[in-house]
Amino acid sequence: MQQLRSIIESRKFEWTITVIIVINAVTLGLETVPAAVAHFGGLLLFLDKLILAIFVVELLTKMAVYRLKFFSDPWRIFDFIVVGIALLPATGSLSVLRALRILRVLRLVSMVPSLRRVVGGLIAALPGMGSIVLLLGLVFYVFSVMATKLYGAAFPEWFGSIPESAYSLFQIMTLESWSMGIVRPVMAEYPMAWAFFVPFIVATSFTVLNLFIGIIVSAMQSEHEAEASADREAMHSEQEVILNEIRALRAEVRAMKAEAEKS
Amino acid sequence: MQQLRSIIESRKFEWTITVIIVINAVTLGLETVPAAVAHFGGLLLFLDKLILAIFVVELLTKMAVYRLKFFSDPWRIFDFIVVGIALLPATGSLSVLRALRILRVLRLVSMVPSLRRVVGGLIAALPGMGSIVLLLGLVFYVFSVMATKLYGAAFPEWFGSIPESAYSLFQIMTLESWSMGIVRPVMAEYPMAWAFFVPFIVATSFTVLNLFIGIIVSAMQSEHEAEASADREAMHSEQEVILNEIRALRAEVRAMKAEAEKS
Amino acid sequence: MQQLRSIIESRKFEWTITVIIVINAVTLGLETVPAAVAHFGGLLLFLDKLILAIFVVELLTKMAVYRLKFFSDPWRIFDFIVVGIALLPATGSLSVLRALRILRVLRLVSMVPSLRRVVGGLIAALPGMGSIVLLLGLVFYVFSVMATKLYGAAFPEWFGSIPESAYSLFQIMTLESWSMGIVRPVMAEYPMAWAFFVPFIVATSFTVLNLFIGIIVSAMQSEHEAEASADREAMHSEQEVILNEIRALRAEVRAMKAEAEKS
Amino acid sequence: MQQLRSIIESRKFEWTITVIIVINAVTLGLETVPAAVAHFGGLLLFLDKLILAIFVVELLTKMAVYRLKFFSDPWRIFDFIVVGIALLPATGSLSVLRALRILRVLRLVSMVPSLRRVVGGLIAALPGMGSIVLLLGLVFYVFSVMATKLYGAAFPEWFGSIPESAYSLFQIMTLESWSMGIVRPVMAEYPMAWAFFVPFIVATSFTVLNLFIGIIVSAMQSEHEAEASADREAMHSEQEVILNEIRALRAEVRAMKAEAEKS
Repeated sequence: MQQLRSIIESRKFEWTITVIIVINAVTLGLETVPAAVAHFGGLLLFLDKLILAIFVVELLTKMAVYRLKFFSDPWRIFDFIVVGIALLPATGSLSVLRALRILRVLRLVSMVPSLRRVVGGLIAALPGMGSIVLLLGLVFYVFSVMATKLYGAAFPEWFGSIPESAYSLFQIMTLESWSMGIVRPVMAEYPMAWAFFVPFIVATSFTVLNLFIGIIVSAMQSEHEAEASADREAMHSEQEVILNEIRALRAEVRAMKAEAEKS
Repeated sequence: MQQLRSIIESRKFEWTITVIIVINAVTLGLETVPAAVAHFGGLLLFLDKLILAIFVVELLTKMAVYRLKFFSDPWRIFDFIVVGIALLPATGSLSVLRALRILRVLRLVSMVPSLRRVVGGLIAALPGMGSIVLLLGLVFYVFSVMATKLYGAAFPEWFGSIPESAYSLFQIMTLESWSMGIVRPVMAEYPMAWAFFVPFIVATSFTVLNLFIGIIVSAMQSEHEAEASADREAMHSEQEVILNEIRALRAEVRAMKAEAEKS
Repeated sequence: MQQLRSIIESRKFEWTITVIIVINAVTLGLETVPAAVAHFGGLLLFLDKLILAIFVVELLTKMAVYRLKFFSDPWRIFDFIVVGIALLPATGSLSVLRALRILRVLRLVSMVPSLRRVVGGLIAALPGMGSIVLLLGLVFYVFSVMATKLYGAAFPEWFGSIPESAYSLFQIMTLESWSMGIVRPVMAEYPMAWAFFVPFIVATSFTVLNLFIGIIVSAMQSEHEAEASADREAMHSEQEVILNEIRALRAEVRAMKAEAEKS
Repeated sequence: MQQLRSIIESRKFEWTITVIIVINAVTLGLETVPAAVAHFGGLLLFLDKLILAIFVVELLTKMAVYRLKFFSDPWRIFDFIVVGIALLPATGSLSVLRALRILRVLRLVSMVPSLRRVVGGLIAALPGMGSIVLLLGLVFYVFSVMATKLYGAAFPEWFGSIPESAYSLFQIMTLESWSMGIVRPVMAEYPMAWAFFVPFIVATSFTVLNLFIGIIVSAMQSEHEAEASADREAMHSEQEVILNEIRALRAEVRAMKAEAEKS
């Protein structure tokens, strides 16, 4: 077991898996090229099955080695899900799962340290966004219900139900065709519709902006924090030296005084 | 009265109201689903009326307890308005008020501390934006009047009146279909129209950008300020210690000198 | 003369001019409302002429008082140009000048201190942008010439000449209908056109972004600078106090030593 | 040779080349104006050939002077490529190269110090973006393959192959007509398509945003770093002075003590 562990944790093993993922990325890409499928369709399918088999063996080995600790690393859970998807029967209404096989290529993120760090950073930024995302969700729900009630009857395609309204409002928030495509037609029916949509745009833009500012400020601050604490440390130690010198001096003076009084 | 106060300020009471708001959010959402209305329409209406009654009783109690201080908390004023809207007769031209009932769900913001903090932060950022928003308003007014004079006759749909021009300019500021949708058609008639719209886009983008930068800088600075003042405090107190040591030493030396002179 | 000066520099005088500008803003706005023109057309025209006369008298007085120093304040030059426009004969091809009368309302910026400060800040940010705007200009020129040569023949409406190409590229830089409206039709003719437009979008977005970052960083820095120098000052003076104490102490010790040696 | 070197490194020579580049920019621009070509076509062509000859001579001289070190300066490599392009036979399928002659104007960047600094800064920001650009590339590849598999059959124009999908996804990332132009039509066929595109928009926007934040933070930090290290230096030297004073004092006291003990 210890031997297996040293193998799967070796740099060589990681490199092999990385190369296999890249090969898989290419074969899955080639599957979308009709000419490639016509000529090497069988080979591509075989390679895909082979690589899937390698991944399954790899993960089973890791599960045998790490046991329950296997699930303590979120990257391994990700690998597990992504490989697991490929094992589901991709037939009938689940045929969409075949297209998800390419997600396996995202395993590269967990294999390449620099990507791992970047994605880790992105994910680390999420919790700080919690409250503001919740607020945005609340605003979307409120505006979706209102849009459905106000414009649902006249524009069922855009505001027919809450999910449809939410999608249309998301489109409006991204400013895509918000006026020419949606608000002007609505205003032709309800002239006051601008009083609903313009504040929505201003409010959500301002909120999203503040979301971004929050991320920038916290990124800057954590960067700054480290630096500032190093500074403080350096200064503190310098002042410590000064203080010790003074105290030593005081002790000497006191000793002199005592001596003088003795004599 | 004191008893009532302890009840309405208890965590349990706040939780109860929060849960009721969430239930209300669901019932108001279900009202937009035809199938739900067909089956439980009566129940939904009854629940809505019941919840409204609870809110009215809650606010009346709060008003009785806090009296005039009720209106000192802006969140309570918000609750008051939002619940008040539901009490207005929603008939005739006021039927739009029925759609505003969902605004009650925004009461969640005042109940959930983290949301309250985020919205408080957003609102706190507003005053600093005052001057630049005023400037933007002035620019919009000037450009709206000019657009109406210059293009109002030829393009009444977009620039027929000052409000219509302001709306079109807002659309142009958000860059939505500004060229293909509006400026190119206008340029077909007035070839120099770009000299009106391109500077408008550049000027408003630059102004809005500076609005954002102002918010970022002030957010960063207030964050920084707190930290820097803590630093300064720490350093000041360290230097205070050093200074006291030196002064004590000086006093001792002086005492020694006096003693030496005496003897 | 001194008397005139004290009048035009008085708060009362400034307020009067500010109020007149606001009235002028309203009358110029009302001129775009057909109903208002039909009923009070004569009055509006009379008011506009009267206000213009007041402005001319005001500026002439200022010129008499300040003489050549009149042109040392950029705000007064702005006032001068804006009032001067209204005096040009607005007939024939110059009829567009009538629409520029509303620019007079921008005089408000020079009258309201907070607006003055904001606009001053915006203008102060411009010089730092010089190099990058020059670079952007160069990139636009190069891409405009290339676009005209490559796509001018097939798409004369968008890329027929350098100015037309520059306008289209500005539209593409703002991302308005860049793909559906322009690049996809061009790609139907020239399949490799994406290799021209996508790098253009990436390059200009990146450059504009760096323009913004430059402004943010310099805004932050000047804010920070002031604060940091105050900090340094405070620290320096504290250390000065310590140093003086130590030197005084040393002098005393030396005096003691001298005394001891004397005795 | 030394003489040649002093010539080509003289300010006068650089100015001459800069002026020639500007003239070339004008002649290349005029080539797109039919009237100019009709009247001075021959002159423009002659000037272009003459300027190209000057550039070739200039670069050959520089190569002769600097020998292999010629290629050590990236700006000279850029000049070399840009001039080289003009020497290729621009016939047949290479006729597009004629349009690339205008790239020569970009030589201005290497001649004007302020532009050189700005472009240097832009390029210096690139390496820090490496990981995140790699991640974005990976995300684009994965989503392109999925889009081709899922929607390629029904919408060959947008998602027919991986490059076409990548282009469409780039358009969607820039938010251009993403909903009205692409996702709504796709949703008419595949109602769940929003579950593919909305996360794509959110994920790529968030990633690009973090790319920008990274640049801002690092720009700010390097700015800050320099300043902070100067601060630290100043403080350190002040504390050094204090420490030296104290140590000198201690030495004196010790000397006094020794003297006192001697007597």
